[in-house]
Amino acid sequence: VPALTIGLDMGGTKCAGVVLDEVAAVVDEHRAPTPAGTDAVLATLTTVAATLRDRAPGAVEAVGIGLPGLVSADGVLRFAPHLVDLFDVPVAAELTARLGCPVTVDNDATCATAAEWQLGAAAGARHAVLVTFGTGIGGGLVVDGALVRGGHGFAGEFGHMTVDPDGPPCVCGRRGCWEQYASGPALAESARARAGAGRLPGPLAAAGGDPGQLLGEHVTSAAAAGDADALRLVDEMARWIALGLANLTLALDPERFVLGGGVLEPPGVVVAPVARRLASALGRAGGHRPVPDVVAAALGARAGAIGAALLARAASVPPGESRR
Amino acid sequence: VPALTIGLDMGGTKCAGVVLDEVAAVVDEHRAPTPAGTDAVLATLTTVAATLRDRAPGAVEAVGIGLPGLVSADGVLRFAPHLVDLFDVPVAAELTARLGCPVTVDNDATCATAAEWQLGAAAGARHAVLVTFGTGIGGGLVVDGALVRGGHGFAGEFGHMTVDPDGPPCVCGRRGCWEQYASGPALAESARARAGAGRLPGPLAAAGGDPGQLLGEHVTSAAAAGDADALRLVDEMARWIALGLANLTLALDPERFVLGGGVLEPPGVVVAPVARRLASALGRAGGHRPVPDVVAAALGARAGAIGAALLARAASVPPGESRR
Repeated sequence: VPALTIGLDMGGTKCAGVVLDEVAAVVDEHRAPTPAGTDAVLATLTTVAATLRDRAPGAVEAVGIGLPGLVSADGVLRFAPHLVDLFDVPVAAELTARLGCPVTVDNDATCATAAEWQLGAAAGARHAVLVTFGTGIGGGLVVDGALVRGGHGFAGEFGHMTVDPDGPPCVCGRRGCWEQYASGPALAESARARAGAGRLPGPLAAAGGDPGQLLGEHVTSAAAAGDADALRLVDEMARWIALGLANLTLALDPERFVLGGGVLEPPGVVVAPVARRLASALGRAGGHRPVPDVVAAALGARAGAIGAALLARAASVPPGESRR
Repeated sequence: VPALTIGLDMGGTKCAGVVLDEVAAVVDEHRAPTPAGTDAVLATLTTVAATLRDRAPGAVEAVGIGLPGLVSADGVLRFAPHLVDLFDVPVAAELTARLGCPVTVDNDATCATAAEWQLGAAAGARHAVLVTFGTGIGGGLVVDGALVRGGHGFAGEFGHMTVDPDGPPCVCGRRGCWEQYASGPALAESARARAGAGRLPGPLAAAGGDPGQLLGEHVTSAAAAGDADALRLVDEMARWIALGLANLTLALDPERFVLGGGVLEPPGVVVAPVARRLASALGRAGGHRPVPDVVAAALGARAGAIGAALLARAASVPPGESRR
């Protein structure tokens, strides 16, 4: 019987689950919408995991979960500004009890970083930073060849770094957070304002003519097709992304940035202008130091779930054996 | 004969040198003003090191140098915005040739971090961030119990992280860098503007009545003595420092910040309001996560030179022996 691992990734809109086999290949998938409230979230996590386990072709050894917020080292979700009313939820303990097998819990972007580093676009890097652009910005770090969680498990919360102290208020209680300039909602808001002023006819038509229905993907799809107005808007977002990556370069000096998340689909549309802008965003230092590579994530929307499974598997390896 | 190590710290205004004995105690010191130009800087480093070596009570085993800029892993100073006309200077190779002993070169704040971590205010921390406030802002990192230099040796350049993209232009070529709001020159500039408007009478009197002569230390000294106008100005700077520390907390989740540099003298005046403000600078997350400790550096102005010597000593330990 092969040893299988389940990985779940609870995002702002959906809970995605995968089953990994011994060579880390995805052998099954299942997903459900993200509900509101602690009980409903715990029930959804349980159901998605149980569904995958019940139809798995072998014994499931461990379950890993990625959550969009501050997850402490003991598996408690402390704070998740993009989930409704979740504070201090002991997810690892609850799910371990409900599923009857070992459950590990990590930040979702930490999971995605583990996956991209082990199997994807950060493979081989000793210093890499993953940044995902979706409902918010998530992040993860590899420093000197090791995944970094920080002193309390909360490293990589790049999205709430202030890039403009006079900027708009954020759900996190701060102002001018990076994710307010580079995320799905941020791109949609810029697009709606511009479409309302008649300056985004292509994407507006794709959204059925109602500016209120415009989403970030209408803009990125139009940009991919060469729409000049959409390209301008994407380039503006790319400028903000490059500014944030320059800040992270100054702090961490990575060899490589791996960019993922739904906002970057199709990947080349946003990643290419960001890569172009990073050297100049570094100012004069950009001419005196290596500029980190900027590449698109390789594992797509499943990175978080795959990484959650990988981390669960690593945690379940008996001491003395390799746990990469 | 005891094994001695020399450490040099070239700052924007002076080159400070120390001699450390085997138990890392400072047994001698020497300093010289920082000159302009590559040749003069190399000559000053050589002279300060040679002076200390000539009068040392034993054999000098190695020399370590800290420099205020981007130092690559091969000991080349690539870029130093606060030194005049220094680019791509092979300091390690030049000084090794001139002094005839092993010379290691690191960023000055990396050196100070090594010293504070081994002997000072960061001792025992597995996740610590050092930030020094002087002519500019320097920084260093301890992550998972190891000193971090980054992929190319350039990690910890926190001072040039953008905190306001509409802010004033910086010597580094970017805009609104953190150090433009929290450094000696930044505090002096705010003080001059305020004194010119008659709103800083105490420090202005201490500066001889000429706003152009006002320095940051006039403000911090007056604040230490309870001057209400000076305290207000210091609190404004503390707010900017807390904003930057909150950004670094989000990215790195350290257990402890160690703050040093001349601008924080006397230390309690600035460090205390920064520590008070950090939780609220973290927004709502500040109530759901441990807030890092904020403490003053313990080794004072000699931290960089001491750390340079410690790093030189560690590099000269033969493979197989401990080099902590």
